[in-house]
Amino acid sequence: MIRNIILASTSTLFGGQYLEYLKDELLIHFSGVKKLLFIPFARPSGISYDEYTNRATCFFKNIGIEVVGIHTVEKKIEAIEKAEAIFTGGGNTFLLVQQLYKFQLLDAIRNAVNNGTPYLGCSAGTNIGGLSMKTTNDMPIVYPPSFDTLGLVPFNLNPHYLDPDPHLKHNGETRETRILEFLSQNETPVVGLREGSWLYIKDDKITLKGNLQARIFEKNKTPYEIPPMTDLSLLK
Amino acid sequence: MIRNIILASTSTLFGGQYLEYLKDELLIHFSGVKKLLFIPFARPSGISYDEYTNRATCFFKNIGIEVVGIHTVEKKIEAIEKAEAIFTGGGNTFLLVQQLYKFQLLDAIRNAVNNGTPYLGCSAGTNIGGLSMKTTNDMPIVYPPSFDTLGLVPFNLNPHYLDPDPHLKHNGETRETRILEFLSQNETPVVGLREGSWLYIKDDKITLKGNLQARIFEKNKTPYEIPPMTDLSLLK
Repeated sequence: MIRNIILASTSTLFGGQYLEYLKDELLIHFSGVKKLLFIPFARPSGISYDEYTNRATCFFKNIGIEVVGIHTVEKKIEAIEKAEAIFTGGGNTFLLVQQLYKFQLLDAIRNAVNNGTPYLGCSAGTNIGGLSMKTTNDMPIVYPPSFDTLGLVPFNLNPHYLDPDPHLKHNGETRETRILEFLSQNETPVVGLREGSWLYIKDDKITLKGNLQARIFEKNKTPYEIPPMTDLSLLK
Repeated sequence: MIRNIILASTSTLFGGQYLEYLKDELLIHFSGVKKLLFIPFARPSGISYDEYTNRATCFFKNIGIEVVGIHTVEKKIEAIEKAEAIFTGGGNTFLLVQQLYKFQLLDAIRNAVNNGTPYLGCSAGTNIGGLSMKTTNDMPIVYPPSFDTLGLVPFNLNPHYLDPDPHLKHNGETRETRILEFLSQNETPVVGLREGSWLYIKDDKITLKGNLQARIFEKNKTPYEIPPMTDLSLLK
């Protein structure tokens, strides 16, 4: 395997510009790439595929990369097979996964990425890098035919991981409670990725990048923190 | 139709005891009831059915009502048909709905409640009162065979409705953004029920109760607030 994958918690840091905090990393990740295939199916806030693709285009033109939205391509599987690089944007994971099944794209993306096509996922695009989308934070606004996803890593991901707010007088579940509920029904470990963190996967090595710790949840274990640069290859 | 339904945002207010804030209402709602059928399938924080049923038992013994957990009954459909009253507790809506489909209980509950069996739902038990569970806040920890639910009201519900926190430096979607994403894909209106609010349904009349406003989301309309005692029968 010759893999090059970035799975980022978020596309945008609070107060920052779209993909700005990842720019140096992406210059290396996509070096030599002239044209990027963008998957806009997650439609954040319900914006159109064109609007969303335009947002990606604005960022990537600054680093000399052309962006093509997969919604504009008729032969979508072929587009994935021939793509120089693939970027799946954030938004609603249920919507994203429903569309990926509708066009039967999951196998094609998995094969391309496992054979070396550089991949970038943000938020929902990171959720689908895990074994399933069962640890997404999103609202189930549509019913996809399955929750199984790409499995680029042998665990699940929780992007936008959020620590409990001790001042909040609200009785909704904390993120940790939700992930522990997941572990009451599943064996798969979960990596809680705080905003500003990403996983970098080179071949089979999985490294936590960014300045923040990540929180790891495993069945029948107390959740624990890991520092940046930890290798997560053995978590499964 | 002779219906008596309470759909509450939460079972417990911040700093309060289980069901305490609803006690006066429940004394009337369940007056004459000697035995209540409890549906513990949502398993908050992954607790067992027995533990969860015990929590309900502790509250209801104070108002002279015996509680039977449906998990202890072999003939579950018959138990629903014969129940004096039904209470579905909160927790994870995906888990709840998966179990309701597994035992084929949705039709039985709908029939019983529409024929006069008093019903109480809290949180996940309120979500299933809507047309679908597509506006739950919960994590999709299991894959139910459908998102369709009881449809005791002609719209969807969002329990634990939470206003945006202007101080939060986090890029995850607000509750309002999530519900607007739902409306980009669905026609069904959504009632955002803040903690401390509940809907009281008497026959076909649907009244907002408690001291707080609720937030209404309709397709192609700006979300708006409604005061307590508003009749929601015409929202569809």
